[in-house]
Amino acid sequence: MSKFIVSQKQGVPFVSVQAMAEMISNHGIEQTIKELVDALEQDFSRWDKFEKSSRFASHSKNGVIELMPVSDGEMFACKYVNGHPINTKRDLQTVAAFGVLSDVETGYPILLTEMCILTALRTAATSALVAKYCAPKNAQTLALIGNGAQGEFQAMGMKAVVGISKVRLYDVDPAASEKVAHNLADSGLDITICKTAEEAVEGADIITTCTADKKNATILRDDMVKKGVFVNAIGGDCPGKTELDAEILLRADHVIVEFEPQTRIEGDIQQLSQDFPVTEFHRIVNGEKEARTNENNLVVFDGVGFASEDFTALVFLRDLIKKQDAYELLDLIPHQQDPKNLYSVVKAHSKDRGIAMNETMAIA
Amino acid sequence: MSKFIVSQKQGVPFVSVQAMAEMISNHGIEQTIKELVDALEQDFSRWDKFEKSSRFASHSKNGVIELMPVSDGEMFACKYVNGHPINTKRDLQTVAAFGVLSDVETGYPILLTEMCILTALRTAATSALVAKYCAPKNAQTLALIGNGAQGEFQAMGMKAVVGISKVRLYDVDPAASEKVAHNLADSGLDITICKTAEEAVEGADIITTCTADKKNATILRDDMVKKGVFVNAIGGDCPGKTELDAEILLRADHVIVEFEPQTRIEGDIQQLSQDFPVTEFHRIVNGEKEARTNENNLVVFDGVGFASEDFTALVFLRDLIKKQDAYELLDLIPHQQDPKNLYSVVKAHSKDRGIAMNETMAIA
Repeated sequence: MSKFIVSQKQGVPFVSVQAMAEMISNHGIEQTIKELVDALEQDFSRWDKFEKSSRFASHSKNGVIELMPVSDGEMFACKYVNGHPINTKRDLQTVAAFGVLSDVETGYPILLTEMCILTALRTAATSALVAKYCAPKNAQTLALIGNGAQGEFQAMGMKAVVGISKVRLYDVDPAASEKVAHNLADSGLDITICKTAEEAVEGADIITTCTADKKNATILRDDMVKKGVFVNAIGGDCPGKTELDAEILLRADHVIVEFEPQTRIEGDIQQLSQDFPVTEFHRIVNGEKEARTNENNLVVFDGVGFASEDFTALVFLRDLIKKQDAYELLDLIPHQQDPKNLYSVVKAHSKDRGIAMNETMAIA
Repeated sequence: MSKFIVSQKQGVPFVSVQAMAEMISNHGIEQTIKELVDALEQDFSRWDKFEKSSRFASHSKNGVIELMPVSDGEMFACKYVNGHPINTKRDLQTVAAFGVLSDVETGYPILLTEMCILTALRTAATSALVAKYCAPKNAQTLALIGNGAQGEFQAMGMKAVVGISKVRLYDVDPAASEKVAHNLADSGLDITICKTAEEAVEGADIITTCTADKKNATILRDDMVKKGVFVNAIGGDCPGKTELDAEILLRADHVIVEFEPQTRIEGDIQQLSQDFPVTEFHRIVNGEKEARTNENNLVVFDGVGFASEDFTALVFLRDLIKKQDAYELLDLIPHQQDPKNLYSVVKAHSKDRGIAMNETMAIA
């Protein structure tokens, strides 16, 4: 199978929100996350093949706009993503993402896609993959603190991959917890809405913090986290935005990160010194280090989201839309017969010159 | 007039190649470049308002993929652009660019557009604006060395803004020169195709080098460049890709750059030491420095293309498409009623669950 969806002269395949929603719904959310977990595992196992850099971030008063480029030498991926918690008050998404996948050999984009849904899926898959290595054996109960746009995806990922059966929800906004409970009512998960974070973490094997406020917050206090637990802290992901009491990190037996240089800037470990010991996750996948050595280990994943995860998701999507025909072609790059004759593309449209458009060019 | 084309809940305005070609053709190429020159001049005069960084570049054997982000605190712009000279042999563009303009306040993209044509226009406008300050008085003759995709735009910019009347063409590929001559036959410019670069520069007031090869080349030797000339060197724009004999730079009375940190890496001055004196162009626009003090000055613009120029072009485009209605709306960002209920966007499509799509959401 060619790695390209269509010939690069035909136009750029585009996946809209509606096309993505229909496709993932057809394919199944759990099934999609499972396949993404496998794809992520494969890409983390070839970590050295990626040209990596910390993401570009443009911070403003109410949010951040980020660019996340990465390449494996064959394909290039870049996600545009913002983070504006204030947006929900405007009936807008906190995160409005889109992305591009390109052919390194030609530099041409071969896929342009919505990435709000795809980001929620890849983040859930990343959390689930890390949990597969880091959660205690036979984990049954997930405490989910922060019940925003990604909440349900996180829960379904932990169900699909780790096999959790119970979810304990908490959010400062009770309507957000109600929303998750409603959406997951027919998921097979046993859902409990809790009045406090303390109540939510009772009996939890996995604690996922997934909050949006751009500030240094303490979503989890040290005394709330028991030995043996896996803390999946994914909401603290830019400078000045943290979720964990630093004591939890200091007490942890193992703190796992994605790409250390980026997490030092953006993760919960920004609260600690630059030499605080962490392990990059690919080393766990590759068997260089064990995530936990016994059932009493406290393991923390300080997840911020790394570009290679979007790369994996975009390559996965490239292959899925070929099977499902879930794209349209975008007229994004000129296709005139002589590539050096870009001027003809404009001139061909000069109505007053009477030159027919197709005389000198053919637009897909 | 609102700075937004449409409400951010309606979808993302998209300008296709065809829409761009029709719009620019209607508006007129010279008129477009003239207006872009005015817009660029205004933005260069408020240089300190921009959050600037050197562009991100991912180099591979045959080319480069770059991201060019910039913000003025109100709008954020980013261009994706490649450079693959080998592409013309595949009937593909050397440069396949697209870009996004976003609202810093919400982080939402408000415009997505083709940027092959737009880049050619903004590059021509930048060259013309710099020439307005740096070319000798009453410049009449342009030598255009390198007659690829941007050639005609460069010539039309120098005509529209500086008032040149003669163009002397040279390219290693004679068909490229024929193409430019053909396209500009009715432009009012007096066109001469030359057999050598030496012949092309005879009597030239402005020498534009606009070649694509990704190597250290000597398009202009020192002995080919007379006193008094303005050299507009825009083809040398990444590490290992230069056009000028270093002697020309060393002899020049004034070397002008866009954003010094980026040009040190990418421009022709990469051949020289890090302390070789250059002047950022905004200082010329703002009257802090004079581009030339007498008619014998040799002035060189070591142009590489800076993100703020794309910002200017994208804001210009935003306003032009409002007048011309030259866009379609792209379903790029979800618009469900409750922004936290992203899961419903996927779940609503679950055919086997029998939930109507419009029950919980409204996709634009």
